[in-house]
Amino acid sequence: MDFFFNPEGIAVIGASADPMKVGYYILKNTLGGYRGRVYPVNPRYETLQGVQCYPDIESIPSGFELAIYFIPARFLPDTIRACAKKGVRGIIIESAGFAEVGEAGRELQEESVRMAREHGIRLWGPNCMGLLDGYKRHVFSFLMSDQVFDLLKPGNASFIVQSGMLSAGFLLMMLERGGLGISKMCSIGNKCDVHETELLKYLIEDDSTEVIGMYVESIKDPAGFMECSRSTSKPIVMLKGGQSPAGARAAASHTASMAGDYTVMRHVFEQCGITEVFDINELMDMVRGFSKTRLLEHDAGTSIVTFSGGGGIITSDMLHARGLKVADLTPESLKALEEVFPEWMAPSHPVDIWPAIEKNGYQKVYARTIDILMNDPGVDSLIIHLFANRMDASYLRGLVTMKERCGKPVIAWCVGNGEKLGAFKAELEDMGIPVFEEMVRGVDFLAAFKRHVRKKGNPLTAGEVPVPESLPG
Amino acid sequence: MDFFFNPEGIAVIGASADPMKVGYYILKNTLGGYRGRVYPVNPRYETLQGVQCYPDIESIPSGFELAIYFIPARFLPDTIRACAKKGVRGIIIESAGFAEVGEAGRELQEESVRMAREHGIRLWGPNCMGLLDGYKRHVFSFLMSDQVFDLLKPGNASFIVQSGMLSAGFLLMMLERGGLGISKMCSIGNKCDVHETELLKYLIEDDSTEVIGMYVESIKDPAGFMECSRSTSKPIVMLKGGQSPAGARAAASHTASMAGDYTVMRHVFEQCGITEVFDINELMDMVRGFSKTRLLEHDAGTSIVTFSGGGGIITSDMLHARGLKVADLTPESLKALEEVFPEWMAPSHPVDIWPAIEKNGYQKVYARTIDILMNDPGVDSLIIHLFANRMDASYLRGLVTMKERCGKPVIAWCVGNGEKLGAFKAELEDMGIPVFEEMVRGVDFLAAFKRHVRKKGNPLTAGEVPVPESLPG
Repeated sequence: MDFFFNPEGIAVIGASADPMKVGYYILKNTLGGYRGRVYPVNPRYETLQGVQCYPDIESIPSGFELAIYFIPARFLPDTIRACAKKGVRGIIIESAGFAEVGEAGRELQEESVRMAREHGIRLWGPNCMGLLDGYKRHVFSFLMSDQVFDLLKPGNASFIVQSGMLSAGFLLMMLERGGLGISKMCSIGNKCDVHETELLKYLIEDDSTEVIGMYVESIKDPAGFMECSRSTSKPIVMLKGGQSPAGARAAASHTASMAGDYTVMRHVFEQCGITEVFDINELMDMVRGFSKTRLLEHDAGTSIVTFSGGGGIITSDMLHARGLKVADLTPESLKALEEVFPEWMAPSHPVDIWPAIEKNGYQKVYARTIDILMNDPGVDSLIIHLFANRMDASYLRGLVTMKERCGKPVIAWCVGNGEKLGAFKAELEDMGIPVFEEMVRGVDFLAAFKRHVRKKGNPLTAGEVPVPESLPG
Repeated sequence: MDFFFNPEGIAVIGASADPMKVGYYILKNTLGGYRGRVYPVNPRYETLQGVQCYPDIESIPSGFELAIYFIPARFLPDTIRACAKKGVRGIIIESAGFAEVGEAGRELQEESVRMAREHGIRLWGPNCMGLLDGYKRHVFSFLMSDQVFDLLKPGNASFIVQSGMLSAGFLLMMLERGGLGISKMCSIGNKCDVHETELLKYLIEDDSTEVIGMYVESIKDPAGFMECSRSTSKPIVMLKGGQSPAGARAAASHTASMAGDYTVMRHVFEQCGITEVFDINELMDMVRGFSKTRLLEHDAGTSIVTFSGGGGIITSDMLHARGLKVADLTPESLKALEEVFPEWMAPSHPVDIWPAIEKNGYQKVYARTIDILMNDPGVDSLIIHLFANRMDASYLRGLVTMKERCGKPVIAWCVGNGEKLGAFKAELEDMGIPVFEEMVRGVDFLAAFKRHVRKKGNPLTAGEVPVPESLPG
């Protein structure tokens, strides 16, 4: 599969000079990060975006490993034949108009697969967004954005998705919010040849991938899927499309997928230790959580630090509803908290620090409180509620090294206004603290993380980080 | 209760000149919108924010109906006595340090209530954020924001909440996002005298309130609560804090509330036709949905328009999981959709319009598609997925009048980038289309709305709106 992610030479078939056209962005994105030779193909141009353009595949003067295809579906068989002569190993077909549109499309798709097999060419797609690699900065995709290279950050999360537009729109939103580094994003559409199970195996072997998010409408090679997903300790977060009769019908016309019996599927997911989700944001949030959460040394209870009594109560209720224990603080911790609390308010748990903040200010109170809680043996994880106000998040900077040292996951939930809130969240994410927009999502993540650890052990190992004795107070 | 919302004269006890202090904002907010006489009380100043300041209540030259209290708890009994001589009818106590901090505070609170009753004075709070009125622009609250008057818009949603900080932080976020007009926001804290059931009755009678959101940790006068919530057709959305043992313990130290048996409560909520929610954003989202959704003429199925096949499938699955029907379009509708679809792609449902957009552009395709779906007898409601791109949302402008004419709720789910997305959403909200960040939340709302209509009929009646025959295409 490496030739898809890191090919020697790429032809862009259907490259365009029109910035309103998809073929313009495929070429632009390919040129944007890929350092090998790129050959745009379009009989209407001599050069495109400063690169020599070829009227057809035959005219390309040398061999190349990958073709990205964005011309009408009917030309695919001829293209495969022409590519074979150039030593092409894989074609990413981003055009639609194949099995998803009916019988004629299905025949065309099947004929293409047969032909490609004969020539030893692998097909990716069709009807997909292609792929991205965050480390190599390869964007072999129609993603219509001028910002993708500014936003794309390498990281340990990879995705396999069967929806083009959804992955494109979502990927951009995700990247803009920050906080999620991408190893590989694989949009596989109709998956006529390369499919999710094959890619899952590839990503499980891939050293730069530590968490895998999936949106699929069907599963090819279920036995292989079960075997590899069960055996890996890398978290897999699954959104399965087509669970309902109406959804399954829609999947048939979307990617020509046979959705299968969902009641069977969900048992498979559970048996294999896969974290199942049911919404798009939830998929992204869970992957982001797993991508930043390393270690969990024991299984005691979750502590809550909040600026709002009501918030602490609601989070407690959520933990309880998911079978998670709310931490009991030691008497020593409660005693130590008195140092920052006003006299008239005895510390209790959840720790509502608002009265303490009024007396001692944000920095001192958050730092001291977190310090005490992270060192309490009754605490195995921490949920912090934050209010993005006049200050930036630097007063929380020591938190990430502390969570590594103590082996206690920390997640945050923030309220606040507009831009301030966005910047505050991004700062926290950069520190390695996953921030959740929905309070319940953070609790769901913690529950999923604990399930994963119980079943498969710690998914990630901590790097060597400098460890402070305490936070600057 | 009117003297709390619209008093003749207000004293602000504990007003301050220091912009870092809560007492500064209480005075500033009171002066910001209230048009009657305001009397700051603080022996350290002669004037405050351009208004004459009084050393004590006795020195105030005339009577007044309302006092807002923000000095230490122990001065409350004396304050009540002094207020009684001035003809005060209500005191909003925003200070903490009462029953929530232990036995001494509880005694002080109970003594204050007894004393107030003797003098015929009603107490609001303590340990609360006070109240806002969006129509009168009354902000009798410590809300620390310079923007509150720019953001506050009148509307049909009222809230009763038992958490000060949560309501303050959330209220500001909600107002900044736009889309939700406020009638009355009541933060009642320890509710030592005025409580949720009394306010609920008041809001049910209040003509400017059409939807009521609640966050409470206990319910006083349960019989009264059941009677009025069961009999009203105004939607009530309830977030009940203290469902779990840990949450209930926290409620006791937050607002000294006895949370009660949640298993009993949830049956009460269900019997009374109350929509129960479990998270803060969910409370706000549900209220926003109800506040904009008028009429539902029949109970057929929900139609989905999407730019993403995957999105349509996931939404279908969500509808199914909540017992909602995915619409079956008539053959006439499918035929009519062909007009905007490319030849190679037959329209189906959910309607994935991406191929049509590539051929005919956003405006024409969305307008025509929505027109066809809204007039299909198999469709009783519409979920639109939108991508905030280069265009603003004006191409959807006819939608709101169309939904009124057809009596079919419309909800939107948007993806897109940063500022563009925020502006796009705000534009839709202003048109009267509720936009949900979480796809699942929109579906949950639709399910709650249909339950409400089945149980209690249409919650709101449509205003007189000009009705277009079709959208501009």
